[in-house]
Amino acid sequence: MTFRQTHLLGIEPLHPVEITTLLDLADTYVELNRGPEKHAAVLEGLTQVNMFFENSTRTQASFELAGQRLGADVMNMAMQASSIKKGESLIDTALTLNAMHPDLLVVRHPHSGAVNLLAEKVNCAVINAGDGRHEHPTQGLLDALTIRRKKGRLHRLTVAICGDIAHSRVARSNIWLLGKMESRIRLVGPPTLIPSGARDWGVEVCHDMETGLADADVVMMLRLQKERMSGGFIPSEREYYYRYGLDAAKLARAKPDAIVMHPGPMNRGVEIDGTIADDINRSVIQEQVEMGVAVRMAAMDLLARNLRDRRAA
Amino acid sequence: MTFRQTHLLGIEPLHPVEITTLLDLADTYVELNRGPEKHAAVLEGLTQVNMFFENSTRTQASFELAGQRLGADVMNMAMQASSIKKGESLIDTALTLNAMHPDLLVVRHPHSGAVNLLAEKVNCAVINAGDGRHEHPTQGLLDALTIRRKKGRLHRLTVAICGDIAHSRVARSNIWLLGKMESRIRLVGPPTLIPSGARDWGVEVCHDMETGLADADVVMMLRLQKERMSGGFIPSEREYYYRYGLDAAKLARAKPDAIVMHPGPMNRGVEIDGTIADDINRSVIQEQVEMGVAVRMAAMDLLARNLRDRRAA
Amino acid sequence: MTFRQTHLLGIEPLHPVEITTLLDLADTYVELNRGPEKHAAVLEGLTQVNMFFENSTRTQASFELAGQRLGADVMNMAMQASSIKKGESLIDTALTLNAMHPDLLVVRHPHSGAVNLLAEKVNCAVINAGDGRHEHPTQGLLDALTIRRKKGRLHRLTVAICGDIAHSRVARSNIWLLGKMESRIRLVGPPTLIPSGARDWGVEVCHDMETGLADADVVMMLRLQKERMSGGFIPSEREYYYRYGLDAAKLARAKPDAIVMHPGPMNRGVEIDGTIADDINRSVIQEQVEMGVAVRMAAMDLLARNLRDRRAA
Repeated sequence: MTFRQTHLLGIEPLHPVEITTLLDLADTYVELNRGPEKHAAVLEGLTQVNMFFENSTRTQASFELAGQRLGADVMNMAMQASSIKKGESLIDTALTLNAMHPDLLVVRHPHSGAVNLLAEKVNCAVINAGDGRHEHPTQGLLDALTIRRKKGRLHRLTVAICGDIAHSRVARSNIWLLGKMESRIRLVGPPTLIPSGARDWGVEVCHDMETGLADADVVMMLRLQKERMSGGFIPSEREYYYRYGLDAAKLARAKPDAIVMHPGPMNRGVEIDGTIADDINRSVIQEQVEMGVAVRMAAMDLLARNLRDRRAA
Repeated sequence: MTFRQTHLLGIEPLHPVEITTLLDLADTYVELNRGPEKHAAVLEGLTQVNMFFENSTRTQASFELAGQRLGADVMNMAMQASSIKKGESLIDTALTLNAMHPDLLVVRHPHSGAVNLLAEKVNCAVINAGDGRHEHPTQGLLDALTIRRKKGRLHRLTVAICGDIAHSRVARSNIWLLGKMESRIRLVGPPTLIPSGARDWGVEVCHDMETGLADADVVMMLRLQKERMSGGFIPSEREYYYRYGLDAAKLARAKPDAIVMHPGPMNRGVEIDGTIADDINRSVIQEQVEMGVAVRMAAMDLLARNLRDRRAA
Repeated sequence: MTFRQTHLLGIEPLHPVEITTLLDLADTYVELNRGPEKHAAVLEGLTQVNMFFENSTRTQASFELAGQRLGADVMNMAMQASSIKKGESLIDTALTLNAMHPDLLVVRHPHSGAVNLLAEKVNCAVINAGDGRHEHPTQGLLDALTIRRKKGRLHRLTVAICGDIAHSRVARSNIWLLGKMESRIRLVGPPTLIPSGARDWGVEVCHDMETGLADADVVMMLRLQKERMSGGFIPSEREYYYRYGLDAAKLARAKPDAIVMHPGPMNRGVEIDGTIADDINRSVIQEQVEMGVAVRMAAMDLLARNLRDRRAA
C-alpha cells in the first residue's frame, strides 16, 4: 500500500504517490455514488464522529454521507462556542471523546493547528475538515480530483487561484497539492489579500486578473471571507467585483477550454458572475461537490485500513 | 403498478387509484411498526435527506424514523434562516445537495411553491413536508388512512374541517384528498379565517359550529396558526374557543360515532377541550401520529421503486 | 434472568443482583468497544429515541454510540425549552412520540420526577438520563463499574463523595448504589451544599476534607452546579477550592492506592487540581467515560430483552 498516513491533517505531509493513490480510489467511489446502491461495507463496525467547532452544513453533510455509505456508525457532535473558550477544554473534550473509542474523528476548528494538537491526544485517525487559515486537505483533494477528471492530468497545468488568499485554508491546501504535482500556480488578488511571504511558496503573484488569468487551464475563485477579516481593510463588494470578480471579459484571457472552480458557497456578483457559475461548459462547481463525497470516502477508507493494520500489529 | 409519480409534491396531482395504492401499502407498514422487528430493507443503499427550512420536531422525527426503518441512510440538514434570505440561494442549495446524489429529499419550506421549484432542479424524488399555505400531502394521506381504518371507507362521509382554514396547508391537502375520494366537505370557521374563494373548491362553508358539525362523520380541528397571521385580525383565544373550540356541546351535533382529529401540536382550551382530546372513544389524535410514520414509509417506498425503474430504463 | 426491570428510572428500585447482572454484562461490552469491530446486533429492528430537555453533549453522545453499536435505529429529538413550559405538554409530547412506536426512550429533564411521569404514559422501555436533583442511574452504574474494575469489588470500600451534594443527582444515584452494595459512604462538603436530612440516608457527613478523605479507597469529586443554585449562597471559586478542591495535600489523607473520580465536565482549579486530574496513577476520569458507553449498552440490552419477553407473552 502506498498511503502510509495515520491522520489526514493537511496536504503538506503527503507524498505525491499518496495523493495519486487516494484520487485513484476516489474515482471508484464516484462510480459507487452514481450507481443504484450506494453502499460499501468498508467501515462496518467502526465509529465516525464529526466534531465541528465551526458551522458548515455543506462540509459536514459531505462527511456524514461519506461515512454512512461506507457503513460506519456516524455521530455528529454539536460543539458549542462556549466549550472552546479555554485552550484547555479542547484537550479535555478530546480525551473524553477518545475514551468512547471512536475510529475516525473529523474535526473543523477556527484555530490553525487545533486539529493537529487534538490528533496527538487520541488513538484514532483524525481528519482535518478545516482549521483556521491552515489547511483543508479534503478540499484540496476534491479540487485535484475535479481537475484530473476534466484535464486528464495534474502536472504541467497553469492554475490561477484568485481572490482572498490571505484568509483561505482552501488556497493553502491547493497550493501544497498543485505544487507537489508540478503544476504552475498563480495567486491573483489585491495586495491586502495576499500574504507578504507568498512569493516564497514557489508561486507567481499577480495583482490584476488580466495578467493572472492569461493562458490559465484552471481558474479557481475563492470565497471572500469577510467573517475572518479584522482590522482595517474590507473591500466594498462592488469595487471588488469590478477588479477581481470573474466575468466573461476576464475569463476570455484564460485558455478557451479553461475550467472555472469555486469551493462554495458562492457570493454571486461578488466573486463570480452568476452566468459563468451556471455555465455547464466552463463551471465545474457542482462536480467539485460530487467529488467531495468521493474523496472523503477514499480518505476514510485508507485511514481505516491503516488503523486496522496498526491495531492488528 | 398504479403509483406513477416522480415526486410527492401535493395531493392535487394524484389520481384516486394512486391514493388507494399508497394507503393499502401503508396498512402493511402499520403492522410492521407494531411488530417486534421494525425493519424492511426496501431503501437499503439509498440516501434520504431531510431539509427543514422551518422547524418541526414532530414531522421531521416521523420522516426520520420512516427512513431508518426502511434501511435508508438518513441525514438531517439544519437549514438556517440565514441561508434562505435570497430566492437564488435555494437553487444553489438544491444544486449543491443534488451533486451529493441523494435519492429521497424531504423538504419543508415557509414559502408556497418552493418545494416544487426545488424538485425541478434535482435528479431525485422530492417529498413536500409542507410548503407555506400550499400543501402538506403526507398529512392529508395520514388523515385519510386514519379515517379509512376507523370508518371503513373514504367516500360518502361528511367531514367538517374546522378553524383556521386560511393559513392551513393541512386543510388544503385534506380538501383535495377528500374531494377526490367523493366525501362531502364542510369548512367551518370565522369569515376572516376562510378564504373568500373557498366556495369554488366544491365545499360547503359554514360560520357556526352548530350547523357545520351537524351529522358529521369526521370532525377535523385545525391548529390556530397565529405565527402565520399578519395584519389586522387576530382572534382572542377566549372568544375563539367560545365560538369555534370543540367542546362536548358542539360535538353533540355530529353523529354519535363521529371521530375527532387534530394534526397537532394542540392548543388545549383554544381549538379543543382537553377532555375531548383525551377521550379514546372519540379522539384519534394518537392514531394520526401512528399513521404518519406508516404513510411516509409507503410514500418513500413507492417513490423509490419509480426512481429505480427510471434509472434502470 | 436476574434483571427484571421494565424501565431504568433510578438505582433505588434495583436489587443488588440486578446491579451485578448489569455490570457483568457491561464488562463484556467494554471488550467489544476495545475490539476491531464494535457491533452487536442485539437491538436490530428496534428504535431508540434520545429526548434531551437539557443539553448534554457528552451523555447524549454516550447513549447514541451505545445504541448504534448495538444496531438500533437511533434518533435524537431536540426538545426546545419552549415545549416544556407547561406540565401538560410533556404528556402530549410523550403520547405523540409513543404513537411512533419507539422501543427505548432515553430522557433527560430538568425536573425531578418528570422521567417517571413520562414512563407511565408510554409502552416502551424508558431510561432516565438525569432528572433534576433526583437520579442519574447510568452515571451511578458507570461509577460502580469503574470502581469494581479498579478495586476488584464494590463492598467494604470507603467512598468519599465530595462537594456539591445538594444539587447532585449523580451523588444520589451513587449513594443508593454504594449503599446497596454495602460500602461505607462519606459525604464531604460545606453545610450549605449538603442537604440537612443527609444523615438519615445511612451515610457519614463531614464538613472538612481532612476528616472526610481519611483512609478513603475512592475519592469521588462532584461538579459545582452553579447553574442549579438559586437564592443566597454561591461560594467563591477561590474559597471553594481552598477548602474543598482536591489537591495533593488533601488527597494524601486517603489510602495510598485511592482512586480519584469526577463525572465531568471538570472545572479545573475549582473542584480539582489539574495535575491530579491528569495523573494516570490516581485519576480514573477517562475510564469513567469509557465505562459509560459499556454500561449504557448493557442497560439497553437488558431492557430490550425484557421488552421482547413482555411483548411475546
